[in-house]
Order: sequence, then structure tokens, then C-alpha cells
Amino acid sequence: MSGVAVPDLDVAALLERRRAVVEAALARLLDELLRDAPPAVAQPARYAVAAGGKRLRPILCLAAHEAAGGTPADGVLDVACGIELIHTYSLVHDDLPCMDDDDLRRGQPTTHRRFGVAAAMVAGAALIPLACRAVLRGSERLGLEVSARAVLVRELCVAAGGGGMVGGQLLDLRAEGHAVALPVLESIHRAKTGALLAASARLGGLAAGAPAGVVAALSAYGEALGLAFQIADDVLDVTGESARLGKTAGRDVELGKATFPALLGVDGARRSADAEAARAIAALEAEGIATAELVALARYAARRDR
Amino acid sequence: MSGVAVPDLDVAALLERRRAVVEAALARLLDELLRDAPPAVAQPARYAVAAGGKRLRPILCLAAHEAAGGTPADGVLDVACGIELIHTYSLVHDDLPCMDDDDLRRGQPTTHRRFGVAAAMVAGAALIPLACRAVLRGSERLGLEVSARAVLVRELCVAAGGGGMVGGQLLDLRAEGHAVALPVLESIHRAKTGALLAASARLGGLAAGAPAGVVAALSAYGEALGLAFQIADDVLDVTGESARLGKTAGRDVELGKATFPALLGVDGARRSADAEAARAIAALEAEGIATAELVALARYAARRDR
Repeated sequence: MSGVAVPDLDVAALLERRRAVVEAALARLLDELLRDAPPAVAQPARYAVAAGGKRLRPILCLAAHEAAGGTPADGVLDVACGIELIHTYSLVHDDLPCMDDDDLRRGQPTTHRRFGVAAAMVAGAALIPLACRAVLRGSERLGLEVSARAVLVRELCVAAGGGGMVGGQLLDLRAEGHAVALPVLESIHRAKTGALLAASARLGGLAAGAPAGVVAALSAYGEALGLAFQIADDVLDVTGESARLGKTAGRDVELGKATFPALLGVDGARRSADAEAARAIAALEAEGIATAELVALARYAARRDR
Repeated sequence: MSGVAVPDLDVAALLERRRAVVEAALARLLDELLRDAPPAVAQPARYAVAAGGKRLRPILCLAAHEAAGGTPADGVLDVACGIELIHTYSLVHDDLPCMDDDDLRRGQPTTHRRFGVAAAMVAGAALIPLACRAVLRGSERLGLEVSARAVLVRELCVAAGGGGMVGGQLLDLRAEGHAVALPVLESIHRAKTGALLAASARLGGLAAGAPAGVVAALSAYGEALGLAFQIADDVLDVTGESARLGKTAGRDVELGKATFPALLGVDGARRSADAEAARAIAALEAEGIATAELVALARYAARRDR
């Protein structure tokens, strides 16, 4: 037991329960929003979304929503799914030959290996407006004050954009094969992984109509959790457990990518991940919203390599 | 003079005047919205947007806004620029090696020839959330009823998505090298070109707070104008005036693309473009909003090969 005064949760069971809810919601959402799309777009889009994964971002959104006093509702599921669609698009594009050139994602052929490069690129990009529509729909169904509806979609667009996720994607790509100092590596991942994870928690708070202090705490929590998550990801790549990683282990080294274990050693990286998780939890405690679930998610993000 | 009871306009002067206004607004918008983006994203994004072109979509939006009773304002310029950003992203992706593999766009190296494939793909995709932010900002500055703010960005996302522009993009790509019947070709272009042109006119009407009938007329106008525009584009490709086309003439034939002149002959295609322009104008007349500018734009779209 840690010093944090919340009961430990069975995080595997928690993630699995939430994941099932998110996957069902994603399927319903795509059925509705892809109704008018030709199969040339809909098939690769569905394939990419169905490839699965942990659904960490929507789970974070749902958990943050409840921590901020929200009541579970279909509307917040739409918002959570919108975030996952942005994440999925980024994976589809990241895997393309011009980026990381990966053949497998979560044990299955990547979208371009299955449907071709053009279809994967175009259908990947098509997930972006789809994500915005999902968030708009969710905002409406939540009965948010109408002014907040535009806020949610704007926050998603900012997190996904050049100053956030895709900026980090390009910086990461540019850094391949170069020596990168720790502060630079952190800033790359704050953008590439952190911006969308922070937005996930933040949008959960906004969907609950939380006050600014709570939303800011959720942002800080999501950012620190994002860094912890990325460090653990890097460690997994080194320790070579492809199965748990869901992608080819050793790939970072192969691509000449800077990683946290390369800079800090495996033990140092693990300590750093733990410190980020502690920082995430502390941000919540300051606002009195350190629920058992959010605490468990932060620890999971930092320690999933162990 | 035609039978339509509006004065003919000097369409070249009109387009040039509007174009200058749009380009200045685009530059201001990118300065603001790309402030937080690293140069790796901002440079290719700016390059792609600055490559220019006719700016037909934002011009259509502004003209539709005025036809629907709107007063020129910075807010509608943001909305118009948002549409152009979506158009720009589609061009960047269309030019990539996995799509049409074009080296030149408007006489300049395409974005991927200048910045590399990865940067072009990622920065292209980054224009999508940027476009949404532009439309949201415009909706706010217009002082629209807050409920209408979400409507504008949703309409843009629907037009840009799988059921609209990108769906058409993929259908177009799939059709390369295949025999395609006229109705199929029309449906491809209704999606690929028409959806965003229709949205341009539609968003102009919505930005003016126009009633549903006017918005529907503007949609119908934009759709017909879009088809006329595409037919004229195909004719230009055949008649080989690269300079006026702004891209490599003869490229459609080289790629085995189905075109309107291939199916209808050059004269038949031109008659068809004129018929679509007439249909566009008739839709406006039914609602009493056939302004000289909108009429001139429809004729220009159909006849720019002549």
C-alpha cells in the first residue's frame, strides 16, 4: 500500500470493464457517423478503430468526469470516443511507411498493410472531423450550456493540433537518429502523448461542468500521467516484452529514437515514471478529487512495465 | 448578356479583390493559430496555405454571406478561411506519392517535394483541427447565437469527412484505370469537390443567420457550381492549358482518371457545365438571392476553360 489514502483497486478489472463500455460506444458511434461514408473510407476507418488497444484516453475521460462530479451518461461516452478517434488517426498515420513504417499494430496488420497506404492515410485523416462530430454530439446530449459545446471541441482541436499531438509527432520523427537531451525528449512527449492524455482528463472535467480549478488539476494530472505512460512505454520497448507492448519490441532502438531508458537507464526511467505518477496524484489531491480510479490509472500508467 | 436580370460583373476584378482580402485574413489567422506549433509543423502548413490558388471556397462563403443579408465582418472571414484550410489539407494529401504523386502545385514544388512526405502528411492533417478552430473563432466573433456556433463547425466536419470530400477523394483514386459511367463520375465529384463548395456557400448563409430555405438554396447552388467547376477543370486538363490550370495538364489521362470530356466530349462537357451553372443560378432565384456576384461566380466556375 502506498501513502495515498485511497483503497487500491484491481486495475486490470477496472480497465477491462471500462474498455468494454468504450468499445460498445465506439461501435454505435461509427455505425451512426459513418452511415453516409462509402466503404472505401468506412472499412479502413472501422478496421483502425476496431484494432483495439487499452482505450486509456476514453477511460481517463470517463474517470475524470466522475471524479469531477459528473453522472455517467451517453453524452460523455461520445466525448470520450471522440478523443479515441483522434488517437486512432494518429496511430494510423504514425504506422505509415513515411513515418515509423510498422507492419503490425496490436498484433494485427497495420491499416495500410491491410488497405494500402492511400486508403490508410485518407481514412486516418477522415477520423479527425469524425472525432469533432462525436464531441459535438456528446456536448449536446450532455445538455451542456450551449457555450460549453464549442469549448469541448476547441480543446480537442488544440490538443490534436500543431501545438500538441501532431507537433510532437513531427518533432519525434525529426529527432530520430539524433542525440536528444532529457528536457527535449520530455517536451516532445508532453506534446506527442501528453497533450491528448491531458485533454482526455480535461474534457471529462469540462463535460461535468467542473470549475476551472478542477479542470486545471485534471490537466496537470493528465500531463504527468502522460509522461509516466511514455516512460513506461520506452522501458517496455527495451525490456522486450512485445506481447504486453502490443507492437514490435526493440523498434525504438532500430529507428534510432531517443528514449528515457537510453538517457536514464532502466532503473532511472522507472523512478522517473513513479515520480510523474506521484505528481499526477498530488495535483488531484490539491483539489480533493483523487478518486481511487484516477489514482489507480496513474499508477498503472507508470508501472505497466513491471 | 444572358437572360438573368443582373448586371454582368468583371469577374476577374471581383475574384482578385476578394482574393486579396482572403489572403490577408489567412495570414493573420495562421499567425495566431500556429503560434504554439513548432516550425516542423508551422513551416509546411504555412507553405501549403501560401501556395495560393483562386481561394474560390472562401470567396463563395463571403459572397453567400452577403447575399443572405450578412454584413462583412472579421468573423465571417475566419469561417471562410477555415474552409480554405480544409481545402488546402486535401490538396497536400492529394499530391502525395501514395495519391496523385504530383511534383508541382500552382507552379511551385508541392509541399512534400519541399518538406518531405512525412512533414507534408502530418502538417496537412494538422490543418483540419486548425480549420475547426478558425470556424469556431469566427462563429464567436460573429456573435452568433451560441447554438449556431456548434452548427457551423459540424457542417464543415460533415462536408470534409467520409460522406463528403475525403470519401470522394478515395472513390476518385479507386476509379483510376477503370471505366466509369457518367452517374458514378458525377457522384464522385459531388463528394470530392461538391461537398466542400456546397458547404462554403452554406456556411456563408448560416453565418448570416439566414432562414433554412435560403441555406438550402445556397447548398444547391454550391453543389451545382461544384460540378460545373469540376467539369471545366477536366476540360482544361484535356485542352492542355497548364498555366491556367495551375497544375500539370494531361495528368488525368496519364493517371487513367475518368473525366467528363472523355465521357461527353469537350463540347458535351462544356454544355453540361453551362447547364449546371444555370441550375445553380436558378436555385438562388427561387429564394430571391441571385446577387450579381453569386451569378458571376457560377458562370466563372463553368466557363473558366473558355
